[in-house]
Amino acid sequence: MAKAIVGVMGPGENASPDENEMAFALGKALAQQGWVVLTGGRSFGIMEAAMKGAHEANGLTIGILPTETAQNSSDDADIKILTGMGSGRNIITVLSSHILVVIGMAAGTASEVALAIKSNKKVILLRQDEITIRFFKNIGTYKVMVANTVEETVQIIKDYLRVTPLTSTKGRTSYSMGELEG
Amino acid sequence: MAKAIVGVMGPGENASPDENEMAFALGKALAQQGWVVLTGGRSFGIMEAAMKGAHEANGLTIGILPTETAQNSSDDADIKILTGMGSGRNIITVLSSHILVVIGMAAGTASEVALAIKSNKKVILLRQDEITIRFFKNIGTYKVMVANTVEETVQIIKDYLRVTPLTSTKGRTSYSMGELEG
Amino acid sequence: MAKAIVGVMGPGENASPDENEMAFALGKALAQQGWVVLTGGRSFGIMEAAMKGAHEANGLTIGILPTETAQNSSDDADIKILTGMGSGRNIITVLSSHILVVIGMAAGTASEVALAIKSNKKVILLRQDEITIRFFKNIGTYKVMVANTVEETVQIIKDYLRVTPLTSTKGRTSYSMGELEG
Amino acid sequence: MAKAIVGVMGPGENASPDENEMAFALGKALAQQGWVVLTGGRSFGIMEAAMKGAHEANGLTIGILPTETAQNSSDDADIKILTGMGSGRNIITVLSSHILVVIGMAAGTASEVALAIKSNKKVILLRQDEITIRFFKNIGTYKVMVANTVEETVQIIKDYLRVTPLTSTKGRTSYSMGELEG
Repeated sequence: MAKAIVGVMGPGENASPDENEMAFALGKALAQQGWVVLTGGRSFGIMEAAMKGAHEANGLTIGILPTETAQNSSDDADIKILTGMGSGRNIITVLSSHILVVIGMAAGTASEVALAIKSNKKVILLRQDEITIRFFKNIGTYKVMVANTVEETVQIIKDYLRVTPLTSTKGRTSYSMGELEG
Repeated sequence: MAKAIVGVMGPGENASPDENEMAFALGKALAQQGWVVLTGGRSFGIMEAAMKGAHEANGLTIGILPTETAQNSSDDADIKILTGMGSGRNIITVLSSHILVVIGMAAGTASEVALAIKSNKKVILLRQDEITIRFFKNIGTYKVMVANTVEETVQIIKDYLRVTPLTSTKGRTSYSMGELEG
Repeated sequence: MAKAIVGVMGPGENASPDENEMAFALGKALAQQGWVVLTGGRSFGIMEAAMKGAHEANGLTIGILPTETAQNSSDDADIKILTGMGSGRNIITVLSSHILVVIGMAAGTASEVALAIKSNKKVILLRQDEITIRFFKNIGTYKVMVANTVEETVQIIKDYLRVTPLTSTKGRTSYSMGELEG
Repeated sequence: MAKAIVGVMGPGENASPDENEMAFALGKALAQQGWVVLTGGRSFGIMEAAMKGAHEANGLTIGILPTETAQNSSDDADIKILTGMGSGRNIITVLSSHILVVIGMAAGTASEVALAIKSNKKVILLRQDEITIRFFKNIGTYKVMVANTVEETVQIIKDYLRVTPLTSTKGRTSYSMGELEG
């Protein structure tokens, strides 16, 4: 049976200790719900912290890696998807998640939030600053949600999964008509 | 000899008439400098307007398309690169441009600005609102420039190309160390 | 802990009943060894048969899908990686597998065998005809192995995994030098 | 106006002198017809030889590069499309060509022929051995053509372009039904 996959996005090396701590708590809370934790798979920052948290609760983790080999990937990624596509892999991270949570902000992270909005995915901005929230609300009103705690985040995901089957066709299926965003 | 390629990014169907007009003027001005105009190749919005402008000045245009076939692509794209990758093609649009200009804003466009910053490319935000400028300055101080007119934009590009050889290795070359952004 | 991932490749709708039967037996045998079965994730042919077999032995399955949504994917793929890249996803299927097994032959399958050789991955050709074996041996002597039964295949994989750590850097890491194949 | 793009595929460093010579002659002959020559863009083998030939006849050349930067790319690629996708870029090389010609054989080349067949593109095998011809005929009867000289190759392309508009929708448009090949 297909499992619910929650993407956790955020900076690598320049994540703050507070952000990493929150990512660990989030990963643990997601795994406690039986959800799979998906990240960019690298061995530092939000990615590694969230997967370590998931493992604390015996969860399953997936890493979508930018590299062609598993070198420098996180030991906490149970399933390593090797793309060899660099930041091109960000679209796969987004499409493969049923819903996404963002902690901290950096260029790669911002591209994932934007791609998620473009792909009709829900994104939860966890404890983000006002500029970030306003920017993403401007380009994706109905897809962007805001949370301040891990508990709130888990509740939003629960509510979302309750009404959205995992086999939902959310995500773009066609480029041939009605494209409203660039 | 390799030609300078300027990427022009912006919304598709929901671009405003003013934005499309500016994209047309920009495309024309870029072609007058002998630069190639690269866009997402679709048949509407900023993409088509910029390529139409380039053709007004007999310029060469490239479209990096999300689709597997040329159906629904713009007739103004001289060279059509078919990727079949959907929004995954945004990284190729970014990497293949020596420098990028952004008119208007939408989810796909935002992902391209973020990927450009991540890939160490310079991005010129042309007549953007304050929230947008502050957001991208926050995540890419040294890579984001601001302009209010086509003339200013052309001048920034001229200055940039004067000091940066087209064969420059700008852009990430490795993921194996020192990744500072997520 | 990272799990060993065995890619099973082969035709979709035009797989023969015999080939599908063998894929089912193979998927089951791989899962009995505790290995993850990775396929192209679609709802027919070798892909579905191998994943159904893996489930018969309570194995974990991964589908690397060409589509942007899970529509039309196989219910037997536990983890669905959505790429939205069409056949561009074949490189991900290859890179993410520690070793690959091929049953039957078709255009997409052939591209995966060739990409595997190019990426320095071992490929086991299971009960293939002479032309196919000779063609792939010609372009990848040391990477192509031949087997006639599921048992033989499992033995080859066991031997391979015994000498090759899962974190091996097999697979191309650089394009900057010594490229010997086009 | 969209230009006809002919993809020329073949080995890199291990191409034979004879093969490189034929690639040069082919590139020149294609450019004399006014066609754009598209290759993998690298600085050796069939790719470079074909683009050098095209330049001898003042043709336009496109290189679809596996790398994120233009380092180590051929100076003979006028338009450099930087994908950062490694061998994942082979699908883009295939989709962006209206028709393909193959000189010599190696793993990467074989993946392109297979992806071309999968994508419903015509492929001309130029002076290939019997095993190669039989293998590809087996998986793509109606899409694979055989030629022994540059002149024959040019004639086949002329005939093909006469009956096939450049805006043709050849190439897969959907994965949702009727997939007959894996």
